[in-house]
Amino acid sequence: MTDINTLSPKNVRLKIRNAEYTSQTSGLCKGFTQANLVVLPKKYVIDFFAFAQRNPKPCPILDVTEKGDPHPKLIAPDADVRTDMPKYRVYEKGELIGEYTDILNFWNEEMYAFLLGCSFTFENALLNANIPVRHIEEKRNVPMYITSIECVPSGVFRGPLVVSMRPIPYQLIVKAVQVTSRFPQVHGAPVHIGNPKEIGIKDIDKPDFGDPVTIKDGEVPIFWACGVTPQAVAMKAKPDIMITHAPGHMFISDVRDENYSIL
Amino acid sequence: MTDINTLSPKNVRLKIRNAEYTSQTSGLCKGFTQANLVVLPKKYVIDFFAFAQRNPKPCPILDVTEKGDPHPKLIAPDADVRTDMPKYRVYEKGELIGEYTDILNFWNEEMYAFLLGCSFTFENALLNANIPVRHIEEKRNVPMYITSIECVPSGVFRGPLVVSMRPIPYQLIVKAVQVTSRFPQVHGAPVHIGNPKEIGIKDIDKPDFGDPVTIKDGEVPIFWACGVTPQAVAMKAKPDIMITHAPGHMFISDVRDENYSIL
Repeated sequence: MTDINTLSPKNVRLKIRNAEYTSQTSGLCKGFTQANLVVLPKKYVIDFFAFAQRNPKPCPILDVTEKGDPHPKLIAPDADVRTDMPKYRVYEKGELIGEYTDILNFWNEEMYAFLLGCSFTFENALLNANIPVRHIEEKRNVPMYITSIECVPSGVFRGPLVVSMRPIPYQLIVKAVQVTSRFPQVHGAPVHIGNPKEIGIKDIDKPDFGDPVTIKDGEVPIFWACGVTPQAVAMKAKPDIMITHAPGHMFISDVRDENYSIL
Repeated sequence: MTDINTLSPKNVRLKIRNAEYTSQTSGLCKGFTQANLVVLPKKYVIDFFAFAQRNPKPCPILDVTEKGDPHPKLIAPDADVRTDMPKYRVYEKGELIGEYTDILNFWNEEMYAFLLGCSFTFENALLNANIPVRHIEEKRNVPMYITSIECVPSGVFRGPLVVSMRPIPYQLIVKAVQVTSRFPQVHGAPVHIGNPKEIGIKDIDKPDFGDPVTIKDGEVPIFWACGVTPQAVAMKAKPDIMITHAPGHMFISDVRDENYSIL
């Protein structure tokens, strides 16, 4: 049997499409960019587009499909966003109505799919620079926090910035800023370094999403804008229907991470 | 009388609003970012937004107003895009119908204003790095060329990439790439270095827009994506109405150039 870790993005997507793979995508197709999904009907699209433009750090758009077209032509032209992710969540008026392995029954001609950059890309860059990523070491989900920083609103879309946190040894902080600055399309440089209270985080050991991780002596918590932000904001806007990926069950693109570095 | 070169962006915009200043904006409010304007009615906005997302080098969006709202809240909240630029061009079905010093008579509740990054920002960065900018030295318009590189289309919006050219001494090419790479939101790194024929430019002395400039011995032509691209593409799409700035008569924002550097 073929080891899935050796397959190309296209072949992994085919396995997912055929329901032969239904788990999280972390670690698959190393070096290829994975993306968050937000599907919305046409009437919300201009406002969501403008929300992303106004808040590029949490909402880096990698691709947007044409109306009713499920193919992300920029990042994986032969993929189908309705079937090629292992698990989806469907929301009606902001309420989760279920998890599905495809969204063929929910898709219609009015829908647009937004594919948004994800922190996997810059975590690979950190690891390549010998910067430790604690939640990977501890096999947990990255800790995420709702901050006191408000996103710039757009139409019905408004809400606080959500950040992810990685503890970094103080002698590697500058390097971590440099490495992630190279990738503005996948959250880019940190939004905050140090004292969590400065951005409204009361207890670093109690993340709002994900799991807490160990912060060792000599390490400083560094916070990056998180792709959960647009989903949280869209959910609060209670659109008639919204579809996202299930946490960790991402879209695997044909684009290599390095393609998104600007230096 | 106050020298206009010493005024703040806000006060220059007020002079423009009151028709006390109607000339080109080049050189005004040094250090503050100037922007290209494209106004379109709602029915074209999703496709134009997606065109910009797919072609970020020629179409870096700095701000998009809300429907019918003339205030660019991100880059100059108290400005009014209908009155605060010295000269506008109005197109109907792709045909220029006239130049105006305000667009109050053309604006309506269905309109969105896109403010797009402009090369003035990275030219300041080049000058600050002691890299010569020939068309400024020769007091000409920057030479611009239609290339053989097709933009990624979106709905009705499609067409070739337009580039601007600056001759750079060979020993400063690396520096010019570095300096402009820092500014991905204002066209960023060059799209081509050297032989014009590689990108479909037949005669470097005959630009499609702007003026030719001298290329001295030991200099190499360097090409950057140009903000004329989205205007040219939008014009070809023949929207019912489209409004742009007149060439060189830009929008002056409250944002400092350095704000757009990612490093």
